Amino acid sequence: MIRVAIAGPRGKMGEEAVNMVVAHAEFELVSVLDSKQSGLDLGSVPVYTSIEQLLEETNPQVFIDLTTPELGMKHTTAAIQAGVRPVVGTTGFTQQDLTELEELCEKTQIGCIIAPNFSIGAILMMKFAEQAARYMQDVEIIEMHHDKKLDAPSGTAVKTAELIQNNRPAHQQGHPEEQESIEGARGADLEGIKLHSVRLPGLVAHQQVLFGGEGQLLTLRHDSFTRGSFMPGVALCIKEVMTTTKLIYGLENLID
Amino acid sequence: MIRVAIAGPRGKMGEEAVNMVVAHAEFELVSVLDSKQSGLDLGSVPVYTSIEQLLEETNPQVFIDLTTPELGMKHTTAAIQAGVRPVVGTTGFTQQDLTELEELCEKTQIGCIIAPNFSIGAILMMKFAEQAARYMQDVEIIEMHHDKKLDAPSGTAVKTAELIQNNRPAHQQGHPEEQESIEGARGADLEGIKLHSVRLPGLVAHQQVLFGGEGQLLTLRHDSFTRGSFMPGVALCIKEVMTTTKLIYGLENLID
Amino acid sequence: MIRVAIAGPRGKMGEEAVNMVVAHAEFELVSVLDSKQSGLDLGSVPVYTSIEQLLEETNPQVFIDLTTPELGMKHTTAAIQAGVRPVVGTTGFTQQDLTELEELCEKTQIGCIIAPNFSIGAILMMKFAEQAARYMQDVEIIEMHHDKKLDAPSGTAVKTAELIQNNRPAHQQGHPEEQESIEGARGADLEGIKLHSVRLPGLVAHQQVLFGGEGQLLTLRHDSFTRGSFMPGVALCIKEVMTTTKLIYGLENLID
Amino acid sequence: MIRVAIAGPRGKMGEEAVNMVVAHAEFELVSVLDSKQSGLDLGSVPVYTSIEQLLEETNPQVFIDLTTPELGMKHTTAAIQAGVRPVVGTTGFTQQDLTELEELCEKTQIGCIIAPNFSIGAILMMKFAEQAARYMQDVEIIEMHHDKKLDAPSGTAVKTAELIQNNRPAHQQGHPEEQESIEGARGADLEGIKLHSVRLPGLVAHQQVLFGGEGQLLTLRHDSFTRGSFMPGVALCIKEVMTTTKLIYGLENLID
Repeated sequence: MIRVAIAGPRGKMGEEAVNMVVAHAEFELVSVLDSKQSGLDLGSVPVYTSIEQLLEETNPQVFIDLTTPELGMKHTTAAIQAGVRPVVGTTGFTQQDLTELEELCEKTQIGCIIAPNFSIGAILMMKFAEQAARYMQDVEIIEMHHDKKLDAPSGTAVKTAELIQNNRPAHQQGHPEEQESIEGARGADLEGIKLHSVRLPGLVAHQQVLFGGEGQLLTLRHDSFTRGSFMPGVALCIKEVMTTTKLIYGLENLID
Repeated sequence: MIRVAIAGPRGKMGEEAVNMVVAHAEFELVSVLDSKQSGLDLGSVPVYTSIEQLLEETNPQVFIDLTTPELGMKHTTAAIQAGVRPVVGTTGFTQQDLTELEELCEKTQIGCIIAPNFSIGAILMMKFAEQAARYMQDVEIIEMHHDKKLDAPSGTAVKTAELIQNNRPAHQQGHPEEQESIEGARGADLEGIKLHSVRLPGLVAHQQVLFGGEGQLLTLRHDSFTRGSFMPGVALCIKEVMTTTKLIYGLENLID
Repeated sequence: MIRVAIAGPRGKMGEEAVNMVVAHAEFELVSVLDSKQSGLDLGSVPVYTSIEQLLEETNPQVFIDLTTPELGMKHTTAAIQAGVRPVVGTTGFTQQDLTELEELCEKTQIGCIIAPNFSIGAILMMKFAEQAARYMQDVEIIEMHHDKKLDAPSGTAVKTAELIQNNRPAHQQGHPEEQESIEGARGADLEGIKLHSVRLPGLVAHQQVLFGGEGQLLTLRHDSFTRGSFMPGVALCIKEVMTTTKLIYGLENLID
Repeated sequence: MIRVAIAGPRGKMGEEAVNMVVAHAEFELVSVLDSKQSGLDLGSVPVYTSIEQLLEETNPQVFIDLTTPELGMKHTTAAIQAGVRPVVGTTGFTQQDLTELEELCEKTQIGCIIAPNFSIGAILMMKFAEQAARYMQDVEIIEMHHDKKLDAPSGTAVKTAELIQNNRPAHQQGHPEEQESIEGARGADLEGIKLHSVRLPGLVAHQQVLFGGEGQLLTLRHDSFTRGSFMPGVALCIKEVMTTTKLIYGLENLID
């Protein structure tokens, strides 16, 4: 049994993570950190407002941080210094933060995993897209989300396009003289890759990567229906962080 | 057996039509019109360069025109005046042409069908999209074609959007404050309906119409793989033109 | 404002319906019926255990029943006799029940709508499938559900196949001499229509109807992600039941 | 420029290969082998009926064999012995044939590639499916083909399932007590993986591999529309065979 503590237990991800760790046969939830301490009741699992006190009194092996960018760096540093391995879902680390953490892991030989995206399915889609680009070089991305989303294209779509660019020369796609009779029809352009963002009520988070070649089409698609889809990724990180002695950034580095 | 003549037998559509009519149990190919007469050999089927001579000597009941906009009007008029019912796949008729033909049909009581799109599957997709818009009012269209296509969005996508507009109020879709971090991501906008055009080698002609509502998605999709997909529509027109006494514009008017 | 009462407010559908009616600008929730009265607190909305008392004291115009087959018939009869129009999502009515209700509506001129499926998107998919079968007669159905589902194929898939059979002759599909090297590959057979049932964790409720013709494919697809997808159908019924004086069975009869 | 000879130039694949090699900037078509010599006219490219004569007189570097299982082994052996590198699309080699060829390559240090499937897109789909199975272990395969196909499930679907089995324990999928109300609904079963075969007119060759996990779905899809889809695979083999000194069986071994 791996002893796990969770920071941010009342957020949407945190709530899922608490349930997952409690239900998992190989993990034990030993404590949670809720800096605002608004009376969360998790039965026999103690709720702390101070990370130092939590680390000292409940002796976790892994510390999962699902809080905010502000707290994330503070928590992660404190955990490593106490010999506890962090698994971090918080985004917003600067390059300087990452360098500091890398050095701290190196010095202490305590592993740490930071994963901006815990969805194994989405990570696989991105890795496969990167691989496929070596052999099929014309590609477009269609991402589809609920209509409350503010930004377009999605971060995942842009990340996918960047990975594809690692393995193909930038080049103009479509007919060189193609014309848009209504502006925007051909989508956003990232070094020749076209990105299309669909926003409709009812949708959750979906992405297709389409590779076209003479006489054929290869489609990689990921549908995310609920936050539960992130939990297998969190579980994988908990297991993997136990055996690493350095900083790993991105779930893709745990997957071959 | 319905006696059929075909104009434009060497074009891509014409070639398919010749094969279909020859193979069809209820049709007989009595002649073809090839104004350039470049030595086409259709076995026992006579090839004419003059429409008047063809109509007089081979006595067809239905005249299929798959030529050019310039010839289409001339052929159609000549056929009706000779008491032969035209089925016309040529596009480019002006409103004045259509009014003239309508009056000619009325006067002669000879039916005529003009169909800019012979694909029954595509017509069904468009009709269903129009119907669905009464009940689900948020919709986006993704059309996908080979990368030799010059125009975007496709004519079928625009036509589909116009039909949808018959049954829903124009309104802005997506988050009112959504931002494109790369221009064009959200596609072309036709009175609130977003249209996305994908162009890749390997693709033929495909369209999806996506209707989103709370907790659900309705997708209407048509894939056209070969020109053979137009032949059931041509066959339907041949049968239907035999029993009408007026001008019908658009295959959708033959389908309930 | 239409005055609405709801029976079964603690069930999954009931909970959604309460929220929808409360949030809807044209509806007012005047009371709920909870025969077990387990202390439900809906703020100022009174909770009743007796339907007679509810009807008498809160004077609803529409009575939504989302209870059990046993209670459904009792509630529906009582509502009509009190001059209140029922909208019923309960299934399990016998043919005799329906005949009785039909006569009661006729006599009282009070409308009633019974809808085994409130999903407008699913109803549209089925209606379109029925229409398409007139023109494209080779069809297969793929339905996909979560892996907790016990029965295969789904009720919706079977209903869809039956509707398609209204408009096409039963006939064997596929190659007449096709062979299954592993039994079951070609799916279930309903008068020639093949039905395939996919069951995977993560899936919710999805169905595709595929119509193939020479050179083309027409696909009708419905994805249901949450129970919220039923609410527009409930709202449509509330409005429609106000203007009918007879029994309507099936949401499809409200949709042209 | 790589000097290429092709055997089987009148078959469907052979015809495509001739066109591809002629059009390719890095290849030169130096001769073809047509054992039946039925008067094929390829302009300045000589047509031979004897492989020995062809190899001697036209001095190719690569010999593409697209003939029959009977001729394949004979041609391949002759080519290697003459120091010419074979690329073979013929299937039906026995294990003994392969061992012999392996030894011959070893002895002569002349490379040879045998590829039962030249479609890079299909190979990528299969490789990705194999990789994904390490992380998502519930999977079903839907393959869709034209209705002239005799066997179900397709060879590609069975091969895909076997590759997936390399990376996951066999286990029963779906609800343990699920019931088929119509036999075959749940498809064919290969060690727990369900395979569904759709056959419709209009379809060409398509396959989807669906991996389900909590709250998510990963779909790998390949659509093959024309035989042109095999040509990039043939071109890849021509280049790769120039730098190998052994027997390579399967295009998947050229792709990382």
